[in-house]
Formats: sequence, C-alpha cells, structure tokens
Amino acid sequence: MKTDSGTVDVGRFDFECGEEIPNLRVAYESYGEFDGDNAVLVCHALTGSQNVAGYGSETTGQARAWWNDIVGPGKAVDTNDYFVVCANVPGSCYGTSGPPSEGPDGDPYGTDFPPVTVGDWTRSQRLLLDELGVGRLHAVVGGSVGGMNALDWAKRYPDDVRRVAAVATAPRLDPQCLALDAIARRAITTDPDWNGGDYYESGEADGDADGAPGPKNGLALARQLGHVMYLSKSSMEQKFGRRAAGRDATRDAFPADPAASFFPYRDVESYLDYQAEKFVGRFDANSYLYLTRAMDDYDLSEGYEDDTRAVAAYEGETLLMSFTGDWHFTTEQSEALAESFRDADVPVAHHVVESDHGHDAFLVEPEKVGPPLRDFLDTGVEGRAIHDTDDDEEIDDGSQFAPVHNSLFSG
Amino acid sequence: MKTDSGTVDVGRFDFECGEEIPNLRVAYESYGEFDGDNAVLVCHALTGSQNVAGYGSETTGQARAWWNDIVGPGKAVDTNDYFVVCANVPGSCYGTSGPPSEGPDGDPYGTDFPPVTVGDWTRSQRLLLDELGVGRLHAVVGGSVGGMNALDWAKRYPDDVRRVAAVATAPRLDPQCLALDAIARRAITTDPDWNGGDYYESGEADGDADGAPGPKNGLALARQLGHVMYLSKSSMEQKFGRRAAGRDATRDAFPADPAASFFPYRDVESYLDYQAEKFVGRFDANSYLYLTRAMDDYDLSEGYEDDTRAVAAYEGETLLMSFTGDWHFTTEQSEALAESFRDADVPVAHHVVESDHGHDAFLVEPEKVGPPLRDFLDTGVEGRAIHDTDDDEEIDDGSQFAPVHNSLFSG
Repeated sequence: MKTDSGTVDVGRFDFECGEEIPNLRVAYESYGEFDGDNAVLVCHALTGSQNVAGYGSETTGQARAWWNDIVGPGKAVDTNDYFVVCANVPGSCYGTSGPPSEGPDGDPYGTDFPPVTVGDWTRSQRLLLDELGVGRLHAVVGGSVGGMNALDWAKRYPDDVRRVAAVATAPRLDPQCLALDAIARRAITTDPDWNGGDYYESGEADGDADGAPGPKNGLALARQLGHVMYLSKSSMEQKFGRRAAGRDATRDAFPADPAASFFPYRDVESYLDYQAEKFVGRFDANSYLYLTRAMDDYDLSEGYEDDTRAVAAYEGETLLMSFTGDWHFTTEQSEALAESFRDADVPVAHHVVESDHGHDAFLVEPEKVGPPLRDFLDTGVEGRAIHDTDDDEEIDDGSQFAPVHNSLFSG
Repeated sequence: MKTDSGTVDVGRFDFECGEEIPNLRVAYESYGEFDGDNAVLVCHALTGSQNVAGYGSETTGQARAWWNDIVGPGKAVDTNDYFVVCANVPGSCYGTSGPPSEGPDGDPYGTDFPPVTVGDWTRSQRLLLDELGVGRLHAVVGGSVGGMNALDWAKRYPDDVRRVAAVATAPRLDPQCLALDAIARRAITTDPDWNGGDYYESGEADGDADGAPGPKNGLALARQLGHVMYLSKSSMEQKFGRRAAGRDATRDAFPADPAASFFPYRDVESYLDYQAEKFVGRFDANSYLYLTRAMDDYDLSEGYEDDTRAVAAYEGETLLMSFTGDWHFTTEQSEALAESFRDADVPVAHHVVESDHGHDAFLVEPEKVGPPLRDFLDTGVEGRAIHDTDDDEEIDDGSQFAPVHNSLFSG
C-alpha cells in the first residue's frame, strides 16, 4: 500500500471566531492511490491523530493506528480501492497547528491560539485537499466528534462529497455530556501546573524526565472521566466487576489518604490510573481544552432553523451508525438525525449495532462496523449489510430500539 | 412536635478496620415522643446530616432538613406517631467524630482518623440508641448509601428491627459508580491544598475568610461529579438543555483559558459551579474521602455466600423502593435484591417509581415516595399504596421494568 505522511502549510487561516494566524500547518497521512474519483476523508475522534492505519507516525495509544481494523488493504475502507486521507485537526497536538505549536514569536502559542470550532476543522481539511489536488470526495467518514466533523462536510460543502458516514455521533451533545466535559476542563485549569496555559517550558525546569510538562493531574482526571464516558455500565461490569487489582498493581499514581490502604485497590481504578498515565504522556492539556470546547459547541443546526434545513442542500447519501450501549452519543440522537435527513429527502440509512461496548464500540467492534461501512462506500445506502431503522416492518413507533428510547437516561 | 438534638459520647469505639479511638461522639436529632415501641431510625445519605426535618441545627444545603417533605407532623413518616432518630455517621463532619474533629492530642484527627465502614455507622447507631433507651426499632429507613446502612441493620441486628425501608439503594455499587467515586477522590488528593489531609489550620493562614480551608478545587470537582450522578440524562435535558446561563452568571469560579470566552457559559456549567461553591463551604474534604470509601466498600453479602444468606436471619419486613431514572442505584439492582429477600422467605415489596429525576428522585419527589413509605411503616408490605413488582400479572420476565433491564447502561 502506498502511504504518505507529511505537513502542508496552507497559509493564513481565519478562524470562525474572527481571529487568524499567519500560517496554518496541517499534518496528514494518506493511504492508497488517488485516481481522481476515489478519495475518502477520515475524520479522527477527540484525541485521535492522522495515523488511522498504523503506518508512518510514532504516536501512541488511540493516536496510533486507531482504526487499523477498518482501514487498510482488503479491509472495510479498502485502501486498494480508495485513496484515504486523514488530517490532524487545528487545535490538536499531532503536527497540525495548535496551542503547543510554535507561534510567530518562536514560542508555543499556548492559550494565545485562537479558539477552534468543528467548522474550522472542516475548512482546514478542504484547504489540505485542495493542496493535494482532491476536489470532490467520494466519501467522508468519521466517528464520535469526527462524526460531527463528517456531518459538517454535508452542511458546509454539500456539493463536495458523495457519501457521508457518521458513526457514533450526534448533531450536538446533550447537557449530561456538556457537564462532564466542563468538569474535565475545570480539572485541568484548576491544576496549578496548568499555569494559565503557559507550561511548555516547565517540564525540563521542574525535573520531569518524561517530556510531558504541564497539568498532569488535571489532564489525568479529564482522561479518566472520558474513559467512563466511552464505556457502558455493562461493559464495565464484564471488564472489571468489583475485583481487586492484581497483586503487582499498586496505588502509586498519585497521593492517597492512609485510610485508602484498608480498602482494595480495584481493577477499575488500576485500569483508569494506567490509562491516565499513558494519556498524559501523549496529549497536550491545552489541546484537550480546545478540542472539547469545539465538540461541546458543535450544533449541526447552527445558522439554520433546524437540522433538516441544515442538511437540505446536501446532494449525497448518508449512513448513520449508532450503538445500543453508547450513552455518550446515543442511538436515539442518531435516529432523530436520520429523521431530519429523511425530512430533507436526503437518502439516509440509520444502522443500529447491538453492542455492550458503549461508545468505544465504534473502535473495538470492527466486525460489526466494517460490513455496513464497506457496503455504503461501495454501493450507498442500499448496501446489503446495511439495516436501516426505517426498513423495519414493525409499526414505526421506535420499538425497534425501545431499549434506548426508554432507557434510564432518556427517561 | 417535640424535637431534640445533641451529642452522646459512647466511649471507646473499635472500628471494623481494627483501629480504635478513645471516645466516639455521636451527634443526633430526634423528632416526636418515644412510647417504647415507635422508634424509627432514619439513615442519611453521603453528605447528609442528622438534620432530617429542619429543626435545630444550622447546617445548610443537603445537610439541612434534607427530608423535610417526608418527615414531620402529619407527613409520611409522621412524627405524631413515631419517635424519629437520625444520627450523623462516623467519618462525617456534622458533629459526630470524624477527620475534622478533635483527636486526643487536641488537634483535628485528619487522616489519622480510622477508616470507616457502613458497618461502623450501624454499630454507632446501635450504641446511640442504647443511650437513648431505645431497644427494638419499629423501623429503619434510609436512602442512597443510607439505604445500604438500613440494609446493614437487617443483616447485623436481625432481631432489632421490625421494618426496613431501603430507598434508591443497592446491595453494592457497580464498577461505573466505583470509577466515578475513585476519580472524585483523586481530584481531592491531587489538589495541593489537600496537603496529605493536613489542612485544617490553613484556612485562616492563607487568608480564606469563608472558614473552609483545604482542597476547595478538588472537593468542587468531586461534588460536581456527584451531581451528574444524581441527575438523569432526561432531567438534565429538561432542566438545562444547551442554554447559555443568564447574563449575570459569570464564569469566575475558577480560572479558564482565554478561548473559553468565545463560547457560551452554559446553564448546566453555571449550576454545577454554584452547587460546588455551596458544597465546599459546608463539607469536609477528608470526610468526603472517608464516606465515599465506606460506600464503595459496602457489600451486603460480605461474610456470607450471597445476599440471600446475608438477610436470611432477618425477622422483619422490607420495603425496597427504586426509581426508573436512577443510574447511580438502579431499579435492576433493587429487583435483584428483592429476589434475594424472596428467596430467603423474608416478606419484601419492591416498589418501582416512574421518575425522570434520576437518583435525586428520592429527595425531590416526596409525593411519590411518601405514600408507600407511610403505608409500609403503618401496615407493612401489604400497605395499600405499595405496588410490589412481584404482584404484576404479566409473566415475570422483568418486562414490567424493561426500560431499566434493557437500558443503555445495562445493555
């Protein structure tokens, strides 16, 4: 497979907030060969990177090869057929301009970097694709906030894309998720090591050897909250139960009260502490603030009366995929969005995956995600492996996904 | 109504952890008159106090008059008929011995206070009641972790109580709640102002005028997480939506990045910030660590093979009450517990309340909680307003609360 990775300087960039920077650098990777009509843009999730399929970059965790089971030669997004492009979004920390990157004065921007929006991400991708010689896209595919990014393409550049696949996403976050994201940001900015966002020089100065200066405690908390949002009650029950962690797992990630030692260090705590430690080594705290704000702010209907009107000009087809165990981006939200596309007479299929895996399902259940996605890219909403909620022969009272409509959360 | 409030020194207290203190002081309130056979013990929730019905103490927030709609003259727990006692639990901060109270050396215990368990709470209540001349209880009533406390009475003192009402509770927490509690504790102990638990003198020293020294930022985060756990997705949607906060609400509770000002300060953030501010003024951070550990550690089956055997010796009747929108303590958990009581041939009723209010429902929906509780105290599980899940004529496949069994969370 031909792969390419690099950066493109797209020049002065005007952000939606009204601010600008003299040069926006966009880091990207591509897989496969462009034949003029086969480009697929993949949009990464919150803390993801351009490294979709494991070639090239050195990043780790979710940032590395995050959809390797879905994208590659012979896989659902087949790089033998498609030219796949993924770009790191503005505000992130994997090579595209963001708070940790160097500003015009030679210092890291920090919180002088302009606030970013999902719309800025979409516009930066359009500029990158222009540089790469890609005009109209065959498809845009994205999961989680990357799914919002994909939806934004249908709204912002309705003639530029033939097929949009928005996986485990929603037209906007609900207030429960907004609350948890706000708590996560508060954890970062109340960590004294955040220092108003100016911490890039402190790592070496304060003796940190791991190259990750800044508000580690706050960022760890933010990540742990994220992890709970990505799992479901039942997946946590299966994965951890109330078990104590193994003998060599020790509670040493952070200070604890002496009383703690009377109680078991549980598997679930150990898992979260381990995940947090990995994360603070790979992600920038200011980027976390910026990207969660962009996600929280996104509202597909912005500038329009409603979601239906926001997508009415879109000329292509849409696949929405949701997961029954996902409480971050719910099946209910996807179904409401599907109704908006239907009302706008945009061909749409809403494929509901039964899964206990919570929001993470879109990453960890490739055998369920792959077939409908492959068929959608190849043949559109009529693809054989796609089961649209609207195809159900039952009376359409929502009963086909009653578990979600009547969930604990939706009341 | 005759009311009384005070403290009782019960002397040396041996904690379940094996440690002891020379004197345990228990702060309590009582309402109504004792006739030898009409005592009802009420167990408070995590951050609650002995001030159930609003008389006497000066505490605020959930700590003050927290069940005033349920307990009082002519109310569901009628203080004209019953002698109601509520005691602050060991480890808390409303007058019963705990980390902030004075140890033998004249200084606050801080984290030298022994780790506490729900079993210690039950045993301290038994000692208090002995002092008050109360032998056998007519009933023990408790909500949330207070419900665990009530269940512990049935297990620990099976002959001492005629009726146990355990509201919005569970025999043990699930790993999702354990995770969120662990994150909350980490927020407290990684706040530098926690200082290993030794912060009681710092308030005045650092110029704080509000009398609440210690890790305010960490405790605020912990409380905000708690609040999200007490609400449901749908109650948050109704209460806040994605609305911006009113004009006079300002984002000044804590530092934020400049980028924040481009985005709205939302109602849901403003609410959480306000709640957190109130809470840090009334609750002790070490107590929060201690009490959440006790809750996380509680397991009704501990020392027995299962829940059924744990309650088999109990001679009284049990009312379990759960709420369909509660994801902290679920209807599903209550139903499994009801099965355990049924298997042990203990008379039990499980009354499910349809509610969007999440876990908070047991506090904020007195019109739904009161009638079954009143009838249970007066006439037991056959009370007219009590609807037992086992009475349903449908085949007992769980379908009467399918919304919870098949929820997003239980998957």
